[in-house]
Amino acid sequence: MDFTKPETVLNLDNIRQALVRMEDTIVFDLIERSQFYSSPSVYEINKFQIEGFQDLSFLDWALLQMEKVHSQIRRYEAPDESPFFPKAILPPILPPINYPKLLANYSDEINVNNEIKKFYVEEIVPQVSCKIGDQQENLGSVSTCDIECLQAISRRIHFGKFVAEVKYQNDKENYIRLIKARDVKGIEDSITNSVVEGKILERLIIKGEGYGIDPSLRYSQNPQSKVKPEVIAKLYKDWIIPLTKKVEIDYLLRRLEDEDAELVKSVV
Amino acid sequence: MDFTKPETVLNLDNIRQALVRMEDTIVFDLIERSQFYSSPSVYEINKFQIEGFQDLSFLDWALLQMEKVHSQIRRYEAPDESPFFPKAILPPILPPINYPKLLANYSDEINVNNEIKKFYVEEIVPQVSCKIGDQQENLGSVSTCDIECLQAISRRIHFGKFVAEVKYQNDKENYIRLIKARDVKGIEDSITNSVVEGKILERLIIKGEGYGIDPSLRYSQNPQSKVKPEVIAKLYKDWIIPLTKKVEIDYLLRRLEDEDAELVKSVV
Repeated sequence: MDFTKPETVLNLDNIRQALVRMEDTIVFDLIERSQFYSSPSVYEINKFQIEGFQDLSFLDWALLQMEKVHSQIRRYEAPDESPFFPKAILPPILPPINYPKLLANYSDEINVNNEIKKFYVEEIVPQVSCKIGDQQENLGSVSTCDIECLQAISRRIHFGKFVAEVKYQNDKENYIRLIKARDVKGIEDSITNSVVEGKILERLIIKGEGYGIDPSLRYSQNPQSKVKPEVIAKLYKDWIIPLTKKVEIDYLLRRLEDEDAELVKSVV
Repeated sequence: MDFTKPETVLNLDNIRQALVRMEDTIVFDLIERSQFYSSPSVYEINKFQIEGFQDLSFLDWALLQMEKVHSQIRRYEAPDESPFFPKAILPPILPPINYPKLLANYSDEINVNNEIKKFYVEEIVPQVSCKIGDQQENLGSVSTCDIECLQAISRRIHFGKFVAEVKYQNDKENYIRLIKARDVKGIEDSITNSVVEGKILERLIIKGEGYGIDPSLRYSQNPQSKVKPEVIAKLYKDWIIPLTKKVEIDYLLRRLEDEDAELVKSVV
């Protein structure tokens, strides 16, 4: 997807293709995480004494350092990336990219990363890790895998902004009416496609098996997938899909802030 | 693999299992890299003006920053990790792990990362990237994927030290004789197993197809793998396997530096 070309980004077919490709990344990242223990020490607030760093976990420390580096290589200039620690980001060392306007002005303010971190740590880690408990020498590796997972899931969920923007552009009058009426239920219905959602879950089961089982062992007795495919489907069903919808709804509810006042007034 | 337990690490079956698992990581990482252009700007020395940073590429800058963070989370304390910029590493923020002695004293000095970076940039990138050329807005993403690939390949190749150590332990007299005679050919023959090498290449073709093709599209017409499986097999055949052997040979040639002098003398 080329974010310098609005016509390629604000196109539902291209967005869907990008979302399907992101599933592969998320499945790969969960498989990598599954090599390690659940490692509660990584997530416990103030578990380690780190100078100048309080009320946060070791994962937070590692994620924050990583975001500092990534901000310097322009990660958070891209409209599809949302930092977990927006206050920590640094100016890029590369010349800036002049992205065209793709999303509404306030779009950076729609950020559900805290909710993502919470469900990831509480719900996903215990289900994808190979064993419950700590393994001291792997805490760094665990945090590195977690950062990959979190960034991939965050990108997937915040991509909802593009979905919302396209739907808004394609049916402005209807949305202006719903937004003016603060009709959350109506907005939710308009962005929900149960058939597509069902297909996502089916595809994730197939990908979980396809990528999680060593294909050279496929015909051996009882090959085990590194991460249970049902866990991946459930992650989407219970968290990724609902949070994507929340992003879409939050984005749409504010959409009139960045709309022509005359047009808004004209819709009754 | 538990590096705090020498008996689990210095065991050829366990090492082989770890090497097979690393293939998955390398294939995943190459597939992720294949989303982007070849991006020569990332690798060109002094392409970008970065304060206090000369005669290096943008990739070097990003890799060095990442290694600083990773060193602080203890990555380079682990005996299976080798930094690309050993001079840049920082003290860990976590308490140190007291790893038992697994490898010879000088093992950190065996480091082929410069050779790895060279073949990766020159030979692998043009073959796995989706298109030749630069795409300005993705230079950061490219460097992030490259770092993952480089670290995974580096770990795989330097794992040769464990293979060499086990082989040495299992047949000390023979190796002491070969090393004293500086018989590089004899050492190389003793560590080469053509049958195992052939199986690795076969397995990589299967993994390249298994992980590179979206399994939900497997029965559609002419599904394309994201990275050509033959490219992955060739990467192993031409670079990873020979460089692993170089690491093993370099490690073994110095092995008597860390051996009982009486024993060395007694072997004739």
